Amino acid sequence: MSDFFSEARSAQAVNGRMAEPVSPRLRQIMTSLVEHLHGFIREVELSEAEWQQAIDFLTRTGQICSPERQEFILLSDTLGVSMLVDAINHRRPPGATENTVFGPFHVANAPLRQMGDTISLDGKGESCLFRGRVLDLDGQPIAGAMLDVWSDNEDGYYDVQQPQSQPRWNNRGRFITGADGRYTFRGVRPVSYPIPDDGPVGMMLAALGRHPWRPAHTHFMLTAPGYQRIVTHTFVAGDNYLTSDAVFGVKASLIQHFEPNPRGDTLWTADFDFVMTTQSPYC
Amino acid sequence: MSDFFSEARSAQAVNGRMAEPVSPRLRQIMTSLVEHLHGFIREVELSEAEWQQAIDFLTRTGQICSPERQEFILLSDTLGVSMLVDAINHRRPPGATENTVFGPFHVANAPLRQMGDTISLDGKGESCLFRGRVLDLDGQPIAGAMLDVWSDNEDGYYDVQQPQSQPRWNNRGRFITGADGRYTFRGVRPVSYPIPDDGPVGMMLAALGRHPWRPAHTHFMLTAPGYQRIVTHTFVAGDNYLTSDAVFGVKASLIQHFEPNPRGDTLWTADFDFVMTTQSPYC
Repeated sequence: MSDFFSEARSAQAVNGRMAEPVSPRLRQIMTSLVEHLHGFIREVELSEAEWQQAIDFLTRTGQICSPERQEFILLSDTLGVSMLVDAINHRRPPGATENTVFGPFHVANAPLRQMGDTISLDGKGESCLFRGRVLDLDGQPIAGAMLDVWSDNEDGYYDVQQPQSQPRWNNRGRFITGADGRYTFRGVRPVSYPIPDDGPVGMMLAALGRHPWRPAHTHFMLTAPGYQRIVTHTFVAGDNYLTSDAVFGVKASLIQHFEPNPRGDTLWTADFDFVMTTQSPYC
Repeated sequence: MSDFFSEARSAQAVNGRMAEPVSPRLRQIMTSLVEHLHGFIREVELSEAEWQQAIDFLTRTGQICSPERQEFILLSDTLGVSMLVDAINHRRPPGATENTVFGPFHVANAPLRQMGDTISLDGKGESCLFRGRVLDLDGQPIAGAMLDVWSDNEDGYYDVQQPQSQPRWNNRGRFITGADGRYTFRGVRPVSYPIPDDGPVGMMLAALGRHPWRPAHTHFMLTAPGYQRIVTHTFVAGDNYLTSDAVFGVKASLIQHFEPNPRGDTLWTADFDFVMTTQSPYC
């Protein structure tokens, strides 16, 4: 009786059960999901004990989630899923600044600052002058572009992780470009830090022989009228973890060189030009 | 730089990160999992909003789990994963009784009863005389086989779901065959019931146009020295949900006919022979 489940036609049995009304997009997603999920189980011939381990892992991952912690996003990040979804949804022409993962530490509506201001409110860490231009694909400056910047402090923590010991909005700020498309601000050279590794995802990384570290990076979100939003980081050249970012965020084009600044008021300078693409007429 | 993540080689970037020591089996499982997971995302070009929905769904599924409720097993069941794992791990020669899902309602060490005894302690429901033989593949009776039986009551609930209103061990019992391999016991004709559908899995089923019902069934677990354990159900012939079991448990060979029993002390008789296979020398 072909209506019943069989090992050979397991995915068809499940997908054949969908009934109207089901949205065409949900049908497409679930059909593919079930085929790949069954394909995986068939390929490795998953044992019952392994299935039980998988159930336990997913359950623990869900149970550790809280308003302050999203372990499933961490799982998505560490399995390269977040970066793959980001890549699929933000394909850009050569020369445009590439996206990378958004991360959990953005806070909306950071203080609007003047060019040249510092975002380091506690004065700790190795000071750096960040500067560069916001350009279009033809190399022309974009006026009125907003750079939203955030980074960790010298101990590897964002202000929201240390509300007791860091000033609010420490190492955060927003800047709007003028006619020349230029930006300059003072901040700190970021440091590498580990993702939270005291939960199921940390156990998974350890079992896979992987470390939980992210290379030092500064977050940028750029928006400008008529242009696609860019969500990205710049990464500190020479960081030990550049080729082993726990969440696969590094792209070669996003590596930024920090130069000593012996005559200036900061220890370092770091230059980076962002290149924005125009918005699709469809979005 | 080939060390970095790219859309085209995303799975290789993730799998290339595994480092010694990682167990060969874990390496095999994770490699296949990442390839299929990325393959799925690539195939449907998952949007960021859909990714967020998936994160939320998994989180809610984990958070509703409790000592009394395992929503990830329910998800596995309703996506046919549990049955596929069962099928892969319990391939048997033609003629042997097939496995089906274990389900969440087994309780170990049910009372040992004499052949002919009843397992219905509250006397409710349509009474039935269950009987048959436990045989080997050559049709010879197996002595000393233990049948562990459990089923719902006339309202569609197991005793453990209604500890206030059902006697403990209601519709449960264990029986050991003698030299003739025969078993007989009295119980109730089971009724169909819905799986818990007030959580994320229920919402998923509704979105897919699927109902949450399981066709009426009696659970059996058979063990005998030297033979492979059988975990299965018998399903009531004619049930409305035979071809649409929410967890895909039905196999044609497990359908059982209930015959009226006008001259007996029960409303129905139900016959079923179980056929066991010898244990592999490797387990």
